[in-house]
Amino acid sequence: MSNGTGMGQPMANYAPARRAGDFVFVSGVVAVDPLRQAVVQGYEELPAQAVQALRDLGYATGQMTVDIYEAPAVAQSWLVLERIRQIAAEYGGGMADVVKLVQYFRDLRHYPFYNRVRSLFYPGEPPASTVVEVSRFMPGDGALIEVEATIYLPR
Amino acid sequence: MSNGTGMGQPMANYAPARRAGDFVFVSGVVAVDPLRQAVVQGYEELPAQAVQALRDLGYATGQMTVDIYEAPAVAQSWLVLERIRQIAAEYGGGMADVVKLVQYFRDLRHYPFYNRVRSLFYPGEPPASTVVEVSRFMPGDGALIEVEATIYLPR
Amino acid sequence: MSNGTGMGQPMANYAPARRAGDFVFVSGVVAVDPLRQAVVQGYEELPAQAVQALRDLGYATGQMTVDIYEAPAVAQSWLVLERIRQIAAEYGGGMADVVKLVQYFRDLRHYPFYNRVRSLFYPGEPPASTVVEVSRFMPGDGALIEVEATIYLPR
Amino acid sequence: MSNGTGMGQPMANYAPARRAGDFVFVSGVVAVDPLRQAVVQGYEELPAQAVQALRDLGYATGQMTVDIYEAPAVAQSWLVLERIRQIAAEYGGGMADVVKLVQYFRDLRHYPFYNRVRSLFYPGEPPASTVVEVSRFMPGDGALIEVEATIYLPR
Amino acid sequence: MSNGTGMGQPMANYAPARRAGDFVFVSGVVAVDPLRQAVVQGYEELPAQAVQALRDLGYATGQMTVDIYEAPAVAQSWLVLERIRQIAAEYGGGMADVVKLVQYFRDLRHYPFYNRVRSLFYPGEPPASTVVEVSRFMPGDGALIEVEATIYLPR
Amino acid sequence: MSNGTGMGQPMANYAPARRAGDFVFVSGVVAVDPLRQAVVQGYEELPAQAVQALRDLGYATGQMTVDIYEAPAVAQSWLVLERIRQIAAEYGGGMADVVKLVQYFRDLRHYPFYNRVRSLFYPGEPPASTVVEVSRFMPGDGALIEVEATIYLPR
Amino acid sequence: MSNGTGMGQPMANYAPARRAGDFVFVSGVVAVDPLRQAVVQGYEELPAQAVQALRDLGYATGQMTVDIYEAPAVAQSWLVLERIRQIAAEYGGGMADVVKLVQYFRDLRHYPFYNRVRSLFYPGEPPASTVVEVSRFMPGDGALIEVEATIYLPR
Amino acid sequence: MSNGTGMGQPMANYAPARRAGDFVFVSGVVAVDPLRQAVVQGYEELPAQAVQALRDLGYATGQMTVDIYEAPAVAQSWLVLERIRQIAAEYGGGMADVVKLVQYFRDLRHYPFYNRVRSLFYPGEPPASTVVEVSRFMPGDGALIEVEATIYLPR
Amino acid sequence: MSNGTGMGQPMANYAPARRAGDFVFVSGVVAVDPLRQAVVQGYEELPAQAVQALRDLGYATGQMTVDIYEAPAVAQSWLVLERIRQIAAEYGGGMADVVKLVQYFRDLRHYPFYNRVRSLFYPGEPPASTVVEVSRFMPGDGALIEVEATIYLPR
Amino acid sequence: MSNGTGMGQPMANYAPARRAGDFVFVSGVVAVDPLRQAVVQGYEELPAQAVQALRDLGYATGQMTVDIYEAPAVAQSWLVLERIRQIAAEYGGGMADVVKLVQYFRDLRHYPFYNRVRSLFYPGEPPASTVVEVSRFMPGDGALIEVEATIYLPR
Amino acid sequence: MSNGTGMGQPMANYAPARRAGDFVFVSGVVAVDPLRQAVVQGYEELPAQAVQALRDLGYATGQMTVDIYEAPAVAQSWLVLERIRQIAAEYGGGMADVVKLVQYFRDLRHYPFYNRVRSLFYPGEPPASTVVEVSRFMPGDGALIEVEATIYLPR
Amino acid sequence: MSNGTGMGQPMANYAPARRAGDFVFVSGVVAVDPLRQAVVQGYEELPAQAVQALRDLGYATGQMTVDIYEAPAVAQSWLVLERIRQIAAEYGGGMADVVKLVQYFRDLRHYPFYNRVRSLFYPGEPPASTVVEVSRFMPGDGALIEVEATIYLPR
Repeated sequence: MSNGTGMGQPMANYAPARRAGDFVFVSGVVAVDPLRQAVVQGYEELPAQAVQALRDLGYATGQMTVDIYEAPAVAQSWLVLERIRQIAAEYGGGMADVVKLVQYFRDLRHYPFYNRVRSLFYPGEPPASTVVEVSRFMPGDGALIEVEATIYLPR
Repeated sequence: MSNGTGMGQPMANYAPARRAGDFVFVSGVVAVDPLRQAVVQGYEELPAQAVQALRDLGYATGQMTVDIYEAPAVAQSWLVLERIRQIAAEYGGGMADVVKLVQYFRDLRHYPFYNRVRSLFYPGEPPASTVVEVSRFMPGDGALIEVEATIYLPR
Repeated sequence: MSNGTGMGQPMANYAPARRAGDFVFVSGVVAVDPLRQAVVQGYEELPAQAVQALRDLGYATGQMTVDIYEAPAVAQSWLVLERIRQIAAEYGGGMADVVKLVQYFRDLRHYPFYNRVRSLFYPGEPPASTVVEVSRFMPGDGALIEVEATIYLPR
Repeated sequence: MSNGTGMGQPMANYAPARRAGDFVFVSGVVAVDPLRQAVVQGYEELPAQAVQALRDLGYATGQMTVDIYEAPAVAQSWLVLERIRQIAAEYGGGMADVVKLVQYFRDLRHYPFYNRVRSLFYPGEPPASTVVEVSRFMPGDGALIEVEATIYLPR
Repeated sequence: MSNGTGMGQPMANYAPARRAGDFVFVSGVVAVDPLRQAVVQGYEELPAQAVQALRDLGYATGQMTVDIYEAPAVAQSWLVLERIRQIAAEYGGGMADVVKLVQYFRDLRHYPFYNRVRSLFYPGEPPASTVVEVSRFMPGDGALIEVEATIYLPR
Repeated sequence: MSNGTGMGQPMANYAPARRAGDFVFVSGVVAVDPLRQAVVQGYEELPAQAVQALRDLGYATGQMTVDIYEAPAVAQSWLVLERIRQIAAEYGGGMADVVKLVQYFRDLRHYPFYNRVRSLFYPGEPPASTVVEVSRFMPGDGALIEVEATIYLPR
Repeated sequence: MSNGTGMGQPMANYAPARRAGDFVFVSGVVAVDPLRQAVVQGYEELPAQAVQALRDLGYATGQMTVDIYEAPAVAQSWLVLERIRQIAAEYGGGMADVVKLVQYFRDLRHYPFYNRVRSLFYPGEPPASTVVEVSRFMPGDGALIEVEATIYLPR
Repeated sequence: MSNGTGMGQPMANYAPARRAGDFVFVSGVVAVDPLRQAVVQGYEELPAQAVQALRDLGYATGQMTVDIYEAPAVAQSWLVLERIRQIAAEYGGGMADVVKLVQYFRDLRHYPFYNRVRSLFYPGEPPASTVVEVSRFMPGDGALIEVEATIYLPR
Repeated sequence: MSNGTGMGQPMANYAPARRAGDFVFVSGVVAVDPLRQAVVQGYEELPAQAVQALRDLGYATGQMTVDIYEAPAVAQSWLVLERIRQIAAEYGGGMADVVKLVQYFRDLRHYPFYNRVRSLFYPGEPPASTVVEVSRFMPGDGALIEVEATIYLPR
Repeated sequence: MSNGTGMGQPMANYAPARRAGDFVFVSGVVAVDPLRQAVVQGYEELPAQAVQALRDLGYATGQMTVDIYEAPAVAQSWLVLERIRQIAAEYGGGMADVVKLVQYFRDLRHYPFYNRVRSLFYPGEPPASTVVEVSRFMPGDGALIEVEATIYLPR
Repeated sequence: MSNGTGMGQPMANYAPARRAGDFVFVSGVVAVDPLRQAVVQGYEELPAQAVQALRDLGYATGQMTVDIYEAPAVAQSWLVLERIRQIAAEYGGGMADVVKLVQYFRDLRHYPFYNRVRSLFYPGEPPASTVVEVSRFMPGDGALIEVEATIYLPR
Repeated sequence: MSNGTGMGQPMANYAPARRAGDFVFVSGVVAVDPLRQAVVQGYEELPAQAVQALRDLGYATGQMTVDIYEAPAVAQSWLVLERIRQIAAEYGGGMADVVKLVQYFRDLRHYPFYNRVRSLFYPGEPPASTVVEVSRFMPGDGALIEVEATIYLPR
């Protein structure tokens, strides 16, 4: 999970990313809302244009009985990738500079949701990818997806 | 799991590998047969010389009551490493150029099978290795082993 | 898990680390005592100054009913990080040269123990970090923590 | 599950539907393919225009790693509702004449899939609906959805 | 489960059946013996001609090691359907007037037993049928089958 | 679960009830609070006279250690039946016009609570009733009771 | 569990209570019927006035489908407290002289039942109380509640 | 669990403590916040000097990923012992007058946390102690620790 | 579990017993061998006359296949009661002065073993007794029995 | 499981039977189809007259919803006993010469099926029999029944 | 399990034993009471001298809390061996003529009980023995021990 | 499990084998080391030539991470068969005189290991064989394989 960015208490004691030569290694990112210090579970914590983009994918339907089953994985997918995009931007790059993603899931049945959301960040082909289902993430059972990125940004 | 290679439908929406500077990052590989779109479970899906090599290790005995317990892990081990070898070759390298393998198992009791098969690909010392047991792989419970490789091929 | 260093039989058949360009990739390390060929479970297998450092953190209390619940995770944390420090030293570097740690836990409730021990190795900010809970490690259920390091040591 | 329609052996020993006064009571329908005598698991058993309609909903992506998790529930939803439409047609009615649907799921996480497919059969508001998660259906664990319909067709 | 019929204490506080227009809605019936206030488990609680009819089907073998596994589901099937027959008779109808049966099982492996017993009540085709496996019935784990009937008896 | 009544977003995409001839078929009702979009768990979400009526039954004791175990099932029982009463009223009827109730429980040990609450709505004999324990309801594990009603209201 | 009182075989080999100075320590009491040597499960083993008192609390309804879920915990609560009352009486005291109750439950959802029954023995405030849920009691799974009392009876 | 002290509704129907001769028997205490009527889970519900004292022990680190695993047991330990201290004070005594503590845990791995917190209340040797792991406490799964105290306060 | 008696490190941080007026409250005792700091599992850790006494009861048979199933519970029973006898002796009393025993088991099937061993310490009637099965004891799963004693020794 | 009979690869490496004096010891037989190298699951793999004989027993009904639950155990019973009959015939004997059968089941609820099928092979009394339920057979979970025979054929 | 001996209905359809040359093969015996057609669970179903013999071993204590845990395994052990003794006697032999016992247990912790009871039947060394723990016996979960005997009785 | 051979205490109270006519019945053998009275888990307890023979099969690799998963089943297989060979030798025979082996496994995935080791004892075809997976063996969970042999040695 990524260390916070100056808002309130730190979430964890390590660097959110570290440059080494032409590479930036990004810590595994989990969709923690830094203000509430809790894992995001619904669309209401996303910016409006993110919700609109997800709606165009068929999610964020506004029907409680549909959204309750899809929102946690869909919203976390968006936030985790958005956070990686922000870190890449801090180093002067973009999603196209990410060369590898290691994507951990608590339940691989969430992969289809994640895959559609990732297409918002990668209109073309996503980078090299590893996908495995593991047991749990910090900070608790609500976290469904963790993604670790390797960025190539030659100086 | 690795994206397919032009046979039929794509298996997944991401690059099988990506070069970045002197490194090639290979996506996690699972032993999916691209034609059947299913995880390999037996020796009959391997080329003949692979079966002979496994037989020299003591596997592929031809006894149903032995092979039924060993074939899935042994055959997947061979296919996953062979696929990595092919990708390295596509980039002009070989198994000796692989500098790190992250090897995920669904059951670590399969490690001895994998370890013997890996010796076919590494007559000498294999590269830096990480081995962990995780919960599941795509595309389903039949997948027992996933391997992610990092290749060093200075230009 | 790390290959042994010349003491008795090898623990596993692969390189403990491999240099590639400016990087050293370290195999996943588990706290195996190379002489006993078993995973470390208590403070009695640590050097005296390590025990003192852990005592300063509040561990190694000498009360059996406290230590029995904390010692395995605390002692393994120290040994795993110390082994990474040794490997970095073999390549002419130190903990500050480690740019990424992938930290696997069998139970994330051990993270607080690990986090305090890591502060002994990183008085400042630790490098980019990924933390996930997985199912098991080699060589058995007693292993609670495995850490894989990437070191940046430009030549 | 619905009795077969003259193809090969009967699937079960009871009427697929029964008229009583102005009502037609339809037996609970499960997505059994009457020729293979097995529950449908993928898109390849659906007619082409059904696959196209599902593709317009965002399903039937052609990516193995996506479809493998979604196809069983999506395809069964379509087949179950299509079979009810056929029975209604045999009695001279249509989906708009169905006044109540009792919808049993083995896993309510499939409800969003079913809900989108149902919109293909009900461009307007679907009828009175009951949704519960139960343990299993005939003829086996592959069956994920069973729907029972009550049709109002005054003579 | 059906309310008792004047013998001793009531089993539950609701009507065993209710007429509405041309329909009689029968409460879900479980095979409770109203005198013992317990769910029937063996053939010894059935009338002699019922046992003979079941024997003609191959049940009620008199071998303890056979009957102990089959008697609960077979005897409950007979009693539940017989109770529905009695209620239909109280309203002036018969089994042929039942237009729908919703049949709940605790274990669908009991369906073959029930199906053979039902043929005693329906020499021809049984009515529209829904079959699902659920978790439990009142008044306890011994109850294996519950059936709800809808009867059509135009005035 | 019942569709909402104009307050905020719809809860689900189907009719809360549908008239067919002399019958009104009511969708399965779950105790969702339409404003909070969550299942009711305590007495504080009920109107005051409902709490008083439950107190007269011996519930809503004001003792935390008692109410915490009883409130979810008792409050949901009241709300589900009240919602059915409201729907019957919208069609010009009352609880006496309900001719069948199908009552699904997640745990049949809640039946005694429900049974006492139902006596508030049925001072006389309740209608034909089916009671089964199933696995889960929408929208989540907090929902303990779902009731489907059939109302007879001849025009 | 309390040793028997001269009826038939002893239930256990220890004193039902022991005086020490101004205190009487009562052994943990479980609701064993000394004649049947079995744990009480229903109202029929209680004296008539006890049943009437429980009926005034709303229990012992006479409805099988209600009593079957409530009777074991309600009846055992009454018997355990009545046995403590008898022991206090043997030492010349009453329930008001009990200064501490340690109340063990197999399932804390039985606490509300016990709490109401205890009010029959304590019209005012009960003494100091400890309540915990444990795994099992002697002599078997049917025992739901065990209570240990400390009585203060200054000489 | 201890009865409340005049704030809002009572939590339970029994005395928080009872004097008998030279002894005060204290009811089992659980860390319920009387205002929120919920079990305390974090440091934010403790007084500032308590948080400081816990910080001196190494807890309350302010790192979310550490505190989330330690705070519930640490904070409950403090509150339970503080409540016992308050009760002792109401009777004119202090922690040194407590002669026995029965300490129930839901998970004995919390004992080290509790043990360190107890040292804040007992700079010297704590009294006679019993420690067992049981199944659950009132009012729910969030409660991790319950402590029952016996105080000796000769008049 | 009892604090150690001067041999090596303390086992826990609390008093093994505490006198209060005419009573001695003994901490819960578990069969830890203070030298090995481990729970006793076999007869070889008992003094010879204890083994002889157990042999007279029919235990300590010398047959591996018998002793392996009985020795842990039998030997722990003896050690726990012997430790209580020693503590009583330190205060000038004996087993006859113990007025209450609270006996916790991890598995009540061990009660018969314990009961026979207790008869070695109580040729007459044992004191007031409470017996419950709980989840676990310190310091680990090997501990099967914990006993807490209250001794009455008027000054 | 029995070694194959010359068709394709051997199934296992041991003798299908071995004569010793007047006895023939037959290896445990499982219903493997030697051509498909898989355990038989349905009637379609039996010869026609076997299916007819099973139909006369009431099995092989042709109703999918019945046969799917009964066919595996019924068909395996027939094949296992037929294989034993063939082996006896190879040694010049018949079913009447079998003096003992050890019959292993994965689920004893299959005994009634097996018992009826055995009556086809033993119109009179079957030989000495042992019946136990065990965990699994080779070559996998589909095998439900294994039978070992001892034949007496004096020379 | 052994076939009955003329009392009431047969328990199973096979020979209780079969002679073949110099050997008598005895069917697996389970402790079924042929009159009650149920597995024996207590001492009250044994003859008086058997109870006395068990009492001399230390069982049949008359204490309910002891006997309830030991009686099922002890009484079944006696009955199973007694039944084998009777069958041997029917063939003119005795326990000394039994050359092999295969002893199946549902829980090997019952072996010590069985072993002591067997010593009543074998004052000297028992014959060749095989002991395994399996899943279940006919006719149900109450059966804890099944024994199969081979007797050598040369003509 | 086999009785010991004069070393230290007996392991069990029965004959390791018993001759009857031309047959020797061998008790079920488990790989217990008679000196340590524990089940063998590794190669270090085997004689050197056994280790060499296993190494020729590909086992006993000396790599800790391989041997730890294979050694228990491989070493036990060797010891169990060697013990049977010794018993046959005591009666003047050899492995070729064994006519039947009943081979019990705790996990059938160990069959391939056992099968290879058995080929060391049977260069030709092994005798009649029965293989089943059961629950447990004496003396504990470490025992993975038990084999019972019947030897034919005509006098």
